[in-house]
Amino acid sequence: MIYGHDPRTGETVGAALPETDNAGVDMIVSAAAAAGQAWRSTPADERALALEAVADALSAHVDELWQLADEETALGEARLRGEVARTAGQFRLFAQVLRDGAYVEAIIDHADPSLTPPRPDVRRMKHALPGVVAVFSASNFPFAFSVAGGDTASALAAGCPVVVKAHPGHPNTSERVAKIVRNSLPYPDLLGLVQGMQAGIDLVKHPSVVAAGFTGSVAGGKAIQKLIDEREVPIPFFGELGSVNPVVVLPSAPVEGVATGFAGSLTLGVGQFCTNPGLMFVPENDELRKALVEAVEGTSGGPMLAERIRDGYLGGVERLGELRLLAEGKPGAGSWAVTPKVFTTELDTFAEKLPEIGEECFGPASIVVTYREISDLRSVLERLDGSLTATVHGADADEAGDVVEVLGRKAGRLIWNGWPTGVAVCWAMQHGGPWPAATTTHTSVGATAIDRWLAPTAYQDWPEALLPDELKDDNPLSIPRRVDGRLEV
Amino acid sequence: MIYGHDPRTGETVGAALPETDNAGVDMIVSAAAAAGQAWRSTPADERALALEAVADALSAHVDELWQLADEETALGEARLRGEVARTAGQFRLFAQVLRDGAYVEAIIDHADPSLTPPRPDVRRMKHALPGVVAVFSASNFPFAFSVAGGDTASALAAGCPVVVKAHPGHPNTSERVAKIVRNSLPYPDLLGLVQGMQAGIDLVKHPSVVAAGFTGSVAGGKAIQKLIDEREVPIPFFGELGSVNPVVVLPSAPVEGVATGFAGSLTLGVGQFCTNPGLMFVPENDELRKALVEAVEGTSGGPMLAERIRDGYLGGVERLGELRLLAEGKPGAGSWAVTPKVFTTELDTFAEKLPEIGEECFGPASIVVTYREISDLRSVLERLDGSLTATVHGADADEAGDVVEVLGRKAGRLIWNGWPTGVAVCWAMQHGGPWPAATTTHTSVGATAIDRWLAPTAYQDWPEALLPDELKDDNPLSIPRRVDGRLEV
Repeated sequence: MIYGHDPRTGETVGAALPETDNAGVDMIVSAAAAAGQAWRSTPADERALALEAVADALSAHVDELWQLADEETALGEARLRGEVARTAGQFRLFAQVLRDGAYVEAIIDHADPSLTPPRPDVRRMKHALPGVVAVFSASNFPFAFSVAGGDTASALAAGCPVVVKAHPGHPNTSERVAKIVRNSLPYPDLLGLVQGMQAGIDLVKHPSVVAAGFTGSVAGGKAIQKLIDEREVPIPFFGELGSVNPVVVLPSAPVEGVATGFAGSLTLGVGQFCTNPGLMFVPENDELRKALVEAVEGTSGGPMLAERIRDGYLGGVERLGELRLLAEGKPGAGSWAVTPKVFTTELDTFAEKLPEIGEECFGPASIVVTYREISDLRSVLERLDGSLTATVHGADADEAGDVVEVLGRKAGRLIWNGWPTGVAVCWAMQHGGPWPAATTTHTSVGATAIDRWLAPTAYQDWPEALLPDELKDDNPLSIPRRVDGRLEV
Repeated sequence: MIYGHDPRTGETVGAALPETDNAGVDMIVSAAAAAGQAWRSTPADERALALEAVADALSAHVDELWQLADEETALGEARLRGEVARTAGQFRLFAQVLRDGAYVEAIIDHADPSLTPPRPDVRRMKHALPGVVAVFSASNFPFAFSVAGGDTASALAAGCPVVVKAHPGHPNTSERVAKIVRNSLPYPDLLGLVQGMQAGIDLVKHPSVVAAGFTGSVAGGKAIQKLIDEREVPIPFFGELGSVNPVVVLPSAPVEGVATGFAGSLTLGVGQFCTNPGLMFVPENDELRKALVEAVEGTSGGPMLAERIRDGYLGGVERLGELRLLAEGKPGAGSWAVTPKVFTTELDTFAEKLPEIGEECFGPASIVVTYREISDLRSVLERLDGSLTATVHGADADEAGDVVEVLGRKAGRLIWNGWPTGVAVCWAMQHGGPWPAATTTHTSVGATAIDRWLAPTAYQDWPEALLPDELKDDNPLSIPRRVDGRLEV
């Protein structure tokens, strides 16, 4: 049986839930696949309405949901209310994406008999992948990256049914969210939920599964990729894995803002964000150093999401102990509580210890690396692994020099004078980055996340009566299309 | 040493070429990576001019090129002249794609402090993958899917340097094309060429390689995927593998047109196309059967591209020998020549022999499966592997019924009353399909093939001075963009 645990006490909370056995996984995936047949051919505007119904239902249940999730995650009311709102907002954004219609990337090339060889009429658009999407929930976002998270919302939007493997950190919250979503969908089986590690393995190996989404550790991502490699028919794997999120502070950056901003971003949610700033390069500057010590000492720790995650953090902090401790925050209260810790070293020493020292330590720990000249940074930044984000702080854009060019090849999102935690859910967001930040070039947040679950089809000399509405000559859905080479809006 | 061979005689032709050793591969990839640094930041309109220079150079050398390729492939003057024109045309299409600018998918979301939480300014566009693209040439297109083929053209267009592993079927043609392309590029090292199987292995394992393109067999594709799985940093693999390209002939289709069209498509280029119609479902109809026999008997074979390919065809034909021979063409002349063969069986027998009987036999061989009722087809089509194309012949769109829905999930391109060989190079083309037709949902032909070599970056509150021109507020490049949710052309 699977139990939720209260991170404040370490005690079990909520109902005991059975692990889904192999037959159960097969039943749930098959039911999702069957529901998916109808969903796939449901017009985009009707899918949009269904997504909005899910958003409404999640919002309507926020009082119950935040409390349930708080028992299992200790993330607190404000954060969890906000996360439910964001989760509902994600469904609403994808409803907009569907109504806009550009996501199908409709292209029409009319026949041209004057060419050599003559060109037939060719039309292209994207459709949902033909099968079930498997989603592996994250520990650290019980709503926004879990049962009704961005992977699920974008896959449902695309026209795919989804089966989610619940994260053991919040099994009861997962069951409740699944029930709410299922009740809001025109075909409840479009969303299935399985519990337990073996169920996750059975899920990703199921022949009806055509793609998988995952948010978690590099080790977890590698394990799922290995399972996929063993499949008879390979499937795409959209993993968002570890990330250290380097920050470069230029000499012109204001000392006070950097120190307080860094300490706040590092310790938000007990540092349990994949966008947490785990590495910061700062100029040698006693004033900045003093401000950083003061800011970090002003922070507090708290209970982490799971015992295993807490243990992972303690191991990571021990590893970083080979550097000097710059400052630590106040210890947090609770059974699985940890203390924020910031270590420091000089650029040369850091470079010597690469690549190991550059690996993510999940939680409120970071390394502050001091440099003498901005020009010293390039060769070290070049050796960093890929990250979800890279940040620059400075008052003068010209000062950044080479730094910007290197960081542009190392991260999916570049931030100026801000902090990486907090990912805006919008059309332009890119939440991904070079390996190991992500396994593909796709994003898991924002409007274009839908593209992961779509595949194009070209129709050659296809009868008008059989063409999808998106590709009919008179454009009955009024969507943006490229016609004979020209984009028409 | 590597030698070209004349398929008509089996004798070696052209110069003996050394295999590229490990140090040579490293030197070539490193030179490409260095040239790529400058290319990556070259404005799109300058890259477009360079692509057009390559196209001009290929066209200018067509007399020399077709003769060289004919010696190594025996594909003949008309086909090879046409293929050089297509190859040049691909470079010209990508020049258009670059000038159009939509390929970067520019999106701007201005800051919105009224939202909860407040939204920063976020802008997103795609850039070239940061490194070298490895391309594995195909046997059957010495120009259009080889050194200067669609993979190379689209990767150069994206802003990536390319290193090609030459196909042993046309090593001298490959060297000559590489020289012509290198001489036309602003940085010759943007295109590198390596020869030999071990060089291909070293290439795909090189740390500076960030993606690989491949056109070839399922076995070849699996071998490269395995090498990629062994890399420390995984890379995307865009493989176009085997395809049987099912054709469904409805009872309303005109007998004569189907028979001659089928025989022509099957035997074009000695059947050496990945889009070759290897499987056709026809109604039980004596007249059609007679017409098919007559049409196939009117065809002629010819020499295949390589001894290994010829042997593969003979093995495949032996495997198909468990069915009844419907008809065969005239034997071709030459050392590696083969004879077109068409086998036949009933739907039930075919279904019993799946999945093995549904595997591709590369060359001018096909299976004609007879059915009684259209409604019998669905369950059999459902069990076919993915293909690049699926074709329907009929006079009445309504007659197609379920067939169209199933085929839509089985192939990347759907064709009505046409034949799958001949792939139009245009904006709307999709040349790909479900596994094993392709390893991803991307296309290897047409304008959107560029997307394989691009990755998005989001810029958050990024200073105007450091933004790429594509994302500056006043849109200096006049490209299509989505601004605050609205697509602007």
